[in-house]
Amino acid sequence: MAKAITPRHVDYAEWYNDLVIRSGLADYSAVRGCMIIKPLGYALWENMRAVLDRMFKETGHVNAYFPLFIPKSFLSREAQHVEGFAKECAVVTHHRLKLADDGSGVVVDPDAKLEEELIVRPTSETIIWHTYRDWIQSYRDLPLLINQWANVVRWELRTRPFLRTAEFLWQEGHTAHATRQEAIAEAERMLDVYARFAEEYMAMPVVRGIKTPSERFAGAEETYCIEALMQDGKALQAGTSHFLGQNFAKAFDVTFLDQNNQRQYVWATSWGVSTRLIGALVMTHSDDDGLVLPPRLAPLQVVIITIPTVEEPQMTVARQIADALRRLGISVEIDTDDTKRAGFKFAEYELRGVPVRIAIGKRDVEHGTVEIARRDTKEKVTIASERAPDYVRALLDEIQRALLERAKRFVADNTHYVDSFGDFERILDEQGGFVMAHWDGTPETEALIKERTKATIRCIPLDHVPEEGRCIVTGKPSHQRVLFARAY
Amino acid sequence: MAKAITPRHVDYAEWYNDLVIRSGLADYSAVRGCMIIKPLGYALWENMRAVLDRMFKETGHVNAYFPLFIPKSFLSREAQHVEGFAKECAVVTHHRLKLADDGSGVVVDPDAKLEEELIVRPTSETIIWHTYRDWIQSYRDLPLLINQWANVVRWELRTRPFLRTAEFLWQEGHTAHATRQEAIAEAERMLDVYARFAEEYMAMPVVRGIKTPSERFAGAEETYCIEALMQDGKALQAGTSHFLGQNFAKAFDVTFLDQNNQRQYVWATSWGVSTRLIGALVMTHSDDDGLVLPPRLAPLQVVIITIPTVEEPQMTVARQIADALRRLGISVEIDTDDTKRAGFKFAEYELRGVPVRIAIGKRDVEHGTVEIARRDTKEKVTIASERAPDYVRALLDEIQRALLERAKRFVADNTHYVDSFGDFERILDEQGGFVMAHWDGTPETEALIKERTKATIRCIPLDHVPEEGRCIVTGKPSHQRVLFARAY
Repeated sequence: MAKAITPRHVDYAEWYNDLVIRSGLADYSAVRGCMIIKPLGYALWENMRAVLDRMFKETGHVNAYFPLFIPKSFLSREAQHVEGFAKECAVVTHHRLKLADDGSGVVVDPDAKLEEELIVRPTSETIIWHTYRDWIQSYRDLPLLINQWANVVRWELRTRPFLRTAEFLWQEGHTAHATRQEAIAEAERMLDVYARFAEEYMAMPVVRGIKTPSERFAGAEETYCIEALMQDGKALQAGTSHFLGQNFAKAFDVTFLDQNNQRQYVWATSWGVSTRLIGALVMTHSDDDGLVLPPRLAPLQVVIITIPTVEEPQMTVARQIADALRRLGISVEIDTDDTKRAGFKFAEYELRGVPVRIAIGKRDVEHGTVEIARRDTKEKVTIASERAPDYVRALLDEIQRALLERAKRFVADNTHYVDSFGDFERILDEQGGFVMAHWDGTPETEALIKERTKATIRCIPLDHVPEEGRCIVTGKPSHQRVLFARAY
Repeated sequence: MAKAITPRHVDYAEWYNDLVIRSGLADYSAVRGCMIIKPLGYALWENMRAVLDRMFKETGHVNAYFPLFIPKSFLSREAQHVEGFAKECAVVTHHRLKLADDGSGVVVDPDAKLEEELIVRPTSETIIWHTYRDWIQSYRDLPLLINQWANVVRWELRTRPFLRTAEFLWQEGHTAHATRQEAIAEAERMLDVYARFAEEYMAMPVVRGIKTPSERFAGAEETYCIEALMQDGKALQAGTSHFLGQNFAKAFDVTFLDQNNQRQYVWATSWGVSTRLIGALVMTHSDDDGLVLPPRLAPLQVVIITIPTVEEPQMTVARQIADALRRLGISVEIDTDDTKRAGFKFAEYELRGVPVRIAIGKRDVEHGTVEIARRDTKEKVTIASERAPDYVRALLDEIQRALLERAKRFVADNTHYVDSFGDFERILDEQGGFVMAHWDGTPETEALIKERTKATIRCIPLDHVPEEGRCIVTGKPSHQRVLFARAY
């Protein structure tokens, strides 16, 4: 028997690591900081990707694919950008190996040194804006609305599966516009897409906001973000959308002739979410027994298990129900493994987060009933088997709704309004969560708070209520509360 | 006006390059050997991927994702494998840049040298079999049927968009089995999937065969392949499926306890197709006016153009037909650009390979008709507009069928049976195509033929007719013809 999962109250970080590995979402790899996304984790990513891709296409975007490698000199073109990424990037310096003279294996061939080193993309603004220079001549070429699904590499020192890995999968939108207003509208539109995805599919409520200048993306004029709250009271940045101004257009000399035949620099946005969302999903809903997945993203929505084992007439009923569910567009599997007991299987599917389990025993068949269990609350009901398909369909909707509801309640219960630095520190240490407090708007105060409490300004919420107050550190006047938290 | 496409009879290679760029399939990038896959090319790849992914899942495979990087030492473990890939790989040696002292930009930080260099995956057998060691303990863990969609890098010297690029997109299946027979059956099954995909979706006939030992994948015991014939008479390897024996299991010590509790090495396969298929598609069907895409893969199946421009009542009819086509599951767009003439648009959609064009003029509306043109033959018909949706649906099927038919005829017309080396050379020089000839089975003869004619043995066809004959070079006895060609 494999090692049990550490309970959350014992050690939340251990619980997360145990769960990710034991449930089959991911595995550690032989390469420092890189994970293996196992079939369950990848199926979840495929489902997320399919929904997001549809949302991107509905908002007018098309996909393309740009090179994995970025010439080193490109990174230097935008001053803040290079500062943000140079310290943690994988550098390709050679293009050949050769057999070692001593027969010990292969070594880098010194004769195959690249003239210019290549960086494995940490993000693609530079290579893409270098390309846009050729693609954009006139206002007729705008807007250019392109998205890319890709892998990226950032050489992080401390890594954790999904949350922070050296390589991760993501999508990055890169759009070009004729006007500032249009680019800002695009950045806000995509933030809205992310927020809707988080709430409607992940059942994860998020706060929409903008980052303070010190937390902005390297090269952005404004960074919009969605922030979620994990079960342990820490915040997690779930997606960002950047208004890049004309920074990259100027760095790569991308101009267009406007309708008055005037040459102008192009306005830009970029926006992305990544496999990090899988970590967010885990830490929003799961429990000590395993994953809890929202039905709209679960790779498998329903499992049917016959009891005591794989035998007739239970299997006949199972097949009838499975067929009916499939006709309703619900994904379902019958467990046909006759080497494992039902109790073992129950635990296994709970671990893997299958939202609904149907159990069919001999007695059930005699009575014309089945037992239906929901993963989120563990509640069970016994109902007439012919009612099962419709019941399950409604139950999946109900689970999706209940997960969002519960998560929203959790955020509400763990959002604290504080007005003194003493309360601020105490709340962070004793309860965690989102802390709404007044701040004087200076990077100095922001840095001081971070240094003393490890909390950062997650965002300046967009749906803020204007409120006069005083900074919890300096007492200087402030016109709205900002959202603080310790964060992943 | 952009440069016209070089006609095929003038220079086939130029025609291909012109077409790929002008149609918007791909663009050159700032990184040597790496291309940019533009929206049209990527949409085509998405359609291919969707079909293949469904076929893989129907044959029991699941997707996963393994790291981009492979520790250098892993490559050395399988002797043939390292020999095959060491000479053309991108090597990551450092993980940080720093600002140059002279302010000229960024330089590689010598203090950030990796202890062990990492190779950007040229293929993933080594990292995957290193992982399978942990995943496989018993016969109950087998078969393990995993596929990965990923980017890979091979540092090719001469590159051409899609056909041979330093980075390309592909899928790589990596399966593990308890017995030799089962692994061979898997390799053959996936070859069959590839062949069906090529014929049923790409409308591209292929010859299924096995490679000679000198053309095998580095580390394989048997390489199965599908070979297609391009319009210029050169062959193109469109997909490969490898029976790897126990080579990787032995290199990475992957064993399992069989049903008799005996420890055994695991048997392996791997198989892949790549964005190269897009190049194959172009060179199978397209013409001097642009792309010709099979309806089952075309990103856009039907375009509707109103004449002389975007105006009523033509647009009303266009919308009615578009709605009806969408209800039939056909992808359709109405061109609403009022800055371009219809003639220009016709040429543009021909260039982009849209299978069916519907044109609606003022006179058409008066007569209740529309004009329907098919891209492949350029034939046009005028029919009653209410018949258009059903007509188009049938026409798309007809185009799909006709493209395969025409391509099959081309292969038949360009497959030559020769019995002397003189004929062999003459056919290759004068006509090209597939050449079926007897070969004595030795690598020496194979190498000699390659050196003297640049033709290689593309495969030993699987559906061969046994036939006694004599090698065209040595006159030694041979029991079947093999397939020779000059190849991409």
